[in-house]
Amino acid sequence: MPPTVFAGGEAGPWNVLSIAPVKGPTLPMVPRLEVFEDAADAAALPTAWRLRGRTSNSRYTRRDEQLTLSARQPALGRPDATRAALIPITKSPAWWALAQDERRELLEETSHHIAIGLQYLPAVARRLHHGRDLGEAFDFLTWFEYMPHDAGAFEELVSRLRATPEWDYVEHEVDIRLAR
Amino acid sequence: MPPTVFAGGEAGPWNVLSIAPVKGPTLPMVPRLEVFEDAADAAALPTAWRLRGRTSNSRYTRRDEQLTLSARQPALGRPDATRAALIPITKSPAWWALAQDERRELLEETSHHIAIGLQYLPAVARRLHHGRDLGEAFDFLTWFEYMPHDAGAFEELVSRLRATPEWDYVEHEVDIRLAR
Repeated sequence: MPPTVFAGGEAGPWNVLSIAPVKGPTLPMVPRLEVFEDAADAAALPTAWRLRGRTSNSRYTRRDEQLTLSARQPALGRPDATRAALIPITKSPAWWALAQDERRELLEETSHHIAIGLQYLPAVARRLHHGRDLGEAFDFLTWFEYMPHDAGAFEELVSRLRATPEWDYVEHEVDIRLAR
Repeated sequence: MPPTVFAGGEAGPWNVLSIAPVKGPTLPMVPRLEVFEDAADAAALPTAWRLRGRTSNSRYTRRDEQLTLSARQPALGRPDATRAALIPITKSPAWWALAQDERRELLEETSHHIAIGLQYLPAVARRLHHGRDLGEAFDFLTWFEYMPHDAGAFEELVSRLRATPEWDYVEHEVDIRLAR
């Protein structure tokens, strides 16, 4: 699977509604966003910025959680899901120096990241892209799609996650909102 | 950290003693191997093949295991460690579809991968490079360094790991032995 490229510029089906710095520097405002499922297709397009990440195997999800997620999570591209968010984040060196059991414990047993996300399914479709092992500035690019009437629920999801102990390890976060 | 490149060709400090297919196709025999810590340095060199991977955070190691490993594992580049092995492997789609707890269980509780490796420390120095998220043909490139009188211990380590249930998920493996 090639990496996905999120390209901010003058072209693309998504209108950029806002780009807000949550922690650390922001990205320049652009009018449109295009999502390229193959980075090679993005090469020719002039853009203000491009963020790259790759879907990968799950890193923390247990089998029981994975089964529940699979049963509830909708596919991307629902025709009535005309709102989207792209949230790039980078975690601190302290996070990456933790052992696997410590990261799992913080993510789920302490912060309930998976359990909180489950409460907003099937309203909010989600896809995670990994950038860290590609040498990108952002460790993760999470893409969300939802219907306009679920916008309140989405705000709640985001603010609950940002209040968790896991988020103490987030050192750079930008919040990009979109509509089509 | 840029990816490391292992370049097989006419140049480099390592003499290639053998290249053996363990499972699936082999790589072409070459006389020498060069290790580039920065892929950019490898670009100009004509080579028969090059394998790319990046060191990353641990994926399965618990804190207690990580502490024991850190206390025992030697650095690469010991002057008397004149033997090396490069073992590229790719695991099956079935492995990557497993949940995190299932992969951990197979790797350690069933196969004792970490515990077996610990028994050969500090004799065998080791560094793991991840290629899967870079889109490389091999998921992992493991590099080992040891002294000639530890060659028997190294053979034992490799054969014990290949006999584990975890190795049922290995679908491509090549074994490259080197000396300098």
